[in-house]
Amino acid sequence: MIELAVFGAGRIGYVHALNVAAHPRVKLKYIVDPVAGAHRDELAGKTGAAIAEAETVFGDPDIAGVIIASSTNTHADLLLKAARTRKAVFCEKPISLDFPTVADVTAQVEASGIPCMLGFQRRYDTSFRALYERIASGASGPLEQLTMSSRDPSPPPRSYVETSGGMFRDSTIHDMDMARFLLNEAIATVYAVGACLISEEIGDAGDIDSLMVTLTTASGRMAQITACRRGPMGYDQRLEALCAKEVLAIENQPQSMLVVNTPEGRHAAPPENYFIERFRQAYRDEMNAFIALIENGEAPLADIRDGYEAQRLVEAAIVSMNTGQAVRFGTSWVPDGEN
Amino acid sequence: MIELAVFGAGRIGYVHALNVAAHPRVKLKYIVDPVAGAHRDELAGKTGAAIAEAETVFGDPDIAGVIIASSTNTHADLLLKAARTRKAVFCEKPISLDFPTVADVTAQVEASGIPCMLGFQRRYDTSFRALYERIASGASGPLEQLTMSSRDPSPPPRSYVETSGGMFRDSTIHDMDMARFLLNEAIATVYAVGACLISEEIGDAGDIDSLMVTLTTASGRMAQITACRRGPMGYDQRLEALCAKEVLAIENQPQSMLVVNTPEGRHAAPPENYFIERFRQAYRDEMNAFIALIENGEAPLADIRDGYEAQRLVEAAIVSMNTGQAVRFGTSWVPDGEN
Amino acid sequence: MIELAVFGAGRIGYVHALNVAAHPRVKLKYIVDPVAGAHRDELAGKTGAAIAEAETVFGDPDIAGVIIASSTNTHADLLLKAARTRKAVFCEKPISLDFPTVADVTAQVEASGIPCMLGFQRRYDTSFRALYERIASGASGPLEQLTMSSRDPSPPPRSYVETSGGMFRDSTIHDMDMARFLLNEAIATVYAVGACLISEEIGDAGDIDSLMVTLTTASGRMAQITACRRGPMGYDQRLEALCAKEVLAIENQPQSMLVVNTPEGRHAAPPENYFIERFRQAYRDEMNAFIALIENGEAPLADIRDGYEAQRLVEAAIVSMNTGQAVRFGTSWVPDGEN
Amino acid sequence: MIELAVFGAGRIGYVHALNVAAHPRVKLKYIVDPVAGAHRDELAGKTGAAIAEAETVFGDPDIAGVIIASSTNTHADLLLKAARTRKAVFCEKPISLDFPTVADVTAQVEASGIPCMLGFQRRYDTSFRALYERIASGASGPLEQLTMSSRDPSPPPRSYVETSGGMFRDSTIHDMDMARFLLNEAIATVYAVGACLISEEIGDAGDIDSLMVTLTTASGRMAQITACRRGPMGYDQRLEALCAKEVLAIENQPQSMLVVNTPEGRHAAPPENYFIERFRQAYRDEMNAFIALIENGEAPLADIRDGYEAQRLVEAAIVSMNTGQAVRFGTSWVPDGEN
Repeated sequence: MIELAVFGAGRIGYVHALNVAAHPRVKLKYIVDPVAGAHRDELAGKTGAAIAEAETVFGDPDIAGVIIASSTNTHADLLLKAARTRKAVFCEKPISLDFPTVADVTAQVEASGIPCMLGFQRRYDTSFRALYERIASGASGPLEQLTMSSRDPSPPPRSYVETSGGMFRDSTIHDMDMARFLLNEAIATVYAVGACLISEEIGDAGDIDSLMVTLTTASGRMAQITACRRGPMGYDQRLEALCAKEVLAIENQPQSMLVVNTPEGRHAAPPENYFIERFRQAYRDEMNAFIALIENGEAPLADIRDGYEAQRLVEAAIVSMNTGQAVRFGTSWVPDGEN
Repeated sequence: MIELAVFGAGRIGYVHALNVAAHPRVKLKYIVDPVAGAHRDELAGKTGAAIAEAETVFGDPDIAGVIIASSTNTHADLLLKAARTRKAVFCEKPISLDFPTVADVTAQVEASGIPCMLGFQRRYDTSFRALYERIASGASGPLEQLTMSSRDPSPPPRSYVETSGGMFRDSTIHDMDMARFLLNEAIATVYAVGACLISEEIGDAGDIDSLMVTLTTASGRMAQITACRRGPMGYDQRLEALCAKEVLAIENQPQSMLVVNTPEGRHAAPPENYFIERFRQAYRDEMNAFIALIENGEAPLADIRDGYEAQRLVEAAIVSMNTGQAVRFGTSWVPDGEN
Repeated sequence: MIELAVFGAGRIGYVHALNVAAHPRVKLKYIVDPVAGAHRDELAGKTGAAIAEAETVFGDPDIAGVIIASSTNTHADLLLKAARTRKAVFCEKPISLDFPTVADVTAQVEASGIPCMLGFQRRYDTSFRALYERIASGASGPLEQLTMSSRDPSPPPRSYVETSGGMFRDSTIHDMDMARFLLNEAIATVYAVGACLISEEIGDAGDIDSLMVTLTTASGRMAQITACRRGPMGYDQRLEALCAKEVLAIENQPQSMLVVNTPEGRHAAPPENYFIERFRQAYRDEMNAFIALIENGEAPLADIRDGYEAQRLVEAAIVSMNTGQAVRFGTSWVPDGEN
Repeated sequence: MIELAVFGAGRIGYVHALNVAAHPRVKLKYIVDPVAGAHRDELAGKTGAAIAEAETVFGDPDIAGVIIASSTNTHADLLLKAARTRKAVFCEKPISLDFPTVADVTAQVEASGIPCMLGFQRRYDTSFRALYERIASGASGPLEQLTMSSRDPSPPPRSYVETSGGMFRDSTIHDMDMARFLLNEAIATVYAVGACLISEEIGDAGDIDSLMVTLTTASGRMAQITACRRGPMGYDQRLEALCAKEVLAIENQPQSMLVVNTPEGRHAAPPENYFIERFRQAYRDEMNAFIALIENGEAPLADIRDGYEAQRLVEAAIVSMNTGQAVRFGTSWVPDGEN
């Protein structure tokens, strides 16, 4: 049995803990969460894991890997501890809200050689993978233009916004990762606009709630992102890839297959409500990939370098939004004039 | 120029008259309609046709063909007059509400050798034809099970019901024709149930408003019809053909391509409201086929024999509904124990 | 902890065993399957259950309920044993292939008063339930016409057909149950046609592979079933309910949300491949309902009387197919002239 | 009768000529096209119009209006002649490929006070209008983010590209107009990227074939355009409007309603092949609007100022693409530093 620990018993930690606990060759040994309470205890009860301190986890030689799903400000430290104690690590994005820290932790983790996987679960979704593989197979011809829509069912509370690092770092990082995954070429330029159109609260917290991004690659291919903190139809996560021979699209997955036809028209069910539901199977497959990484060294679809690169794009988008001009990105741009 | 006359300036006569008048090689010379009024005059004005009596039409040697779109009780007489004066004829279904008359007129028209086409416009619809041709091409494999849904936007008024010959003869005849067209094999059995579920008025007039039919062919293939005088979503005209390799379906055509996504789901526009709108292009193509029949003797998709056979099926369905038992149909069954 | 046993480690037993084993308040104690082998052992390993004999299960006073998912010919005996030892019981359909046995077992189980639930999982499916509840809420108006399509991805092997009781008893029983569930009124007439159109092997085994059924209720409402042992698009399980105000439809659930647009058109993914995948969540909810039945006496959506009534309809359909005539069904019809 | 003349017997002139000729209160008197040939003669034959010179048209006091559908380099001159002779004018976009000429002609036409309508037919399309009116009604809440996709079925020939003024002026002008129409607010910034990804020939002619645009308004609302000279699925013309309460979308209109279901999935028909087919009804309604403008002075949905403003946006997009930076647009920006 592979023994694992999960950091964080919140929404996403809960999902990961149940998924690994259900795996026939895994024992979830520890759950680490400083917040005592019903939620953490329920999870421990359901999974048979012990509630422990981080020191116990990193000091236990039987622990093969750790899953970091705790709050963002703990990621960097836990990644470094995993590197030092040579545990395989799965870490939710982002690595840190501070870009120099991201760069530093990425370098140290890579130098350590530990197996490390980043939590870009969309790469594991059945539909996104089918699209990726169809392009990779050559059936679609080269990808030329990519369009992504990302909308949450409702804006997050102000408290969340305040510690989130802002909409780009918190949410658009997923779209940036998907653009990199599919374009598979160095990004040449980044242009972004953002505004606070839907929630005064978000504006008061200094963040935006609506944005658009344009990326180009070295060879002239293009990607667009349109994102909003509030999707009137619920969680709205779509993508369209214009390739030379085909246009590939990922549509929202309806909550049920019931269709109601009335004099006003044909009414289909709204999309799965939020990421936990929409990516239920992707989260399972992601944990299976982490276990395969530990067992066989099988390369995951996203590693810590992918986390670094997606965040570099996010930082460029923020600079673009703030300056009103496109950022010449390339392979070496980093924020704060350090290139 | 081919000179034509149209009998009937009602809803469908209006459509046919405008369609032939717009044809570059056709002159619409006469409109015959006993009902004086704005509708008839407007049509004459738009098409440049003269309002005339039937005698004028059949006595004019320049008239190459007539379009019979007048009330059902005039069809038989006009068909026979066309046969006698050797005019090509397009006739709306049904030939007559009285089956012996249908048989007699069919025999006489066939004996006369005049070009004669029946108004089963669905056969000319882009979607139905594409389905027919796909099956005919062999791409789908043999057709095994056919399911048809036919619903009107709202029940007809009692006055219409009273002279319509009943729902089977008035409306289901189209579905019977489509079943024959697609199955392309002798029908072996006919079973039908009917009820008055939606309109007391229709029941008071001695008719039904809801029905289901099952047909089988000599080789065991099957068809189902489900029909109602009222479709809550509007005009609802669908078909599904299970073939050995594919399931072919014809869906309703939405009134617009606007889709509204709300928290309640995805709302697409209702279907084209009624047959005039839904089959707008089919009616044009049907008239073009009538002109091609006159010009080149090109066989139409539906002739008077098809009208006879569809009506024979309708009569069998009525017998089945009334007796509660299946009718052994075959090639020789006719109503009233005359076989 | 509620202690349960599962009879049968085949396809559906496997699903039920995993589902109950994953329930936080359930211990799956025994698996009973006479066929030794990797499949049974794997299931025991995954669930922590012991492999046992039927006597052990019925003799164990801690066992609160049993799940009968073994071969059909064992159902009647196990149901009676459960009744005698007062275990709650979940039983897959059908109760027996022999109608007098069905009648007898139903009577005995009902007389015993044990909690008993039949395996009509469609009633627990999210989409079917949403449709049922929408009708029940009155939002749709009265249900008038029901149309169901049922097609398997590919015909079963001859060996399966030979012991299945035939297509009606094996498969159409689900559609009969759904018709009863939704119409919620005594069935007045049953008419069925069947043929062997797709598989000579099935014909050689004396069965049909294609069928259509028409039902009417006492008040004149109607239902149609069209079914085939082979669906060219895979598992095809749809339903449409014409109500006075709305047409409700259940569509197939695609395997992924990837859509490929080419010059030939818009290509969406095929349906979930088979019932295990399509009804994955329904099977979970069905087991949760069984546990709620044991824990709180909460009435299940389908009990043994529903199994009896669906089978009575199936027997009438077989009589109709064999005689070529409609069966006057009502509340008292039973096969073999016993009414 | 309103007497009209059409300039240009090419693809779009042909459509306009037939549409006005079919209008009951219009006489199409002249067709002006310097290119003699079968096409022009066929159109004259079908419409009953005489082939004439421009001088005849502008010198005929009975001519109430002219439809300019000739080649782009004739538009400005014809517009000015119409202004001088006080004919109502419908003009296809663009006014001119030279922006100062656009500005000058717009000013002169406005000063003349003649009724003048620009050919932005999308504004007259059933679906686009339904969307526009839904937003205008307030039902959707404020429009926040707009996304448009525009793709032609196949790239134009080099000869067309060379005189087209480039992809932005030739094609994207329609999307710019739609953005203005729907956003209904001053555009604040314009950013565009373009590349030649699909056709070397187009690149050799100095044009691009793929582009993306981002617009923002004064209040922070946003629009994106993604466009390509080649759509693998054919003519692909979609739009999505995120509003506060709803997401409105316009989908492509399939060529038929036939759906083919195979083991590979659900295959629907491709979109109407090109703009002539897709906007068939919109072109009719546009001509009806021109006639209503002449008859009653009813304001058209697009006038010459809309042509000027859409072209101003196009010029800004070209500047942005060429400089790699966003253009601060506002109400006064004009190309070449003339502001």
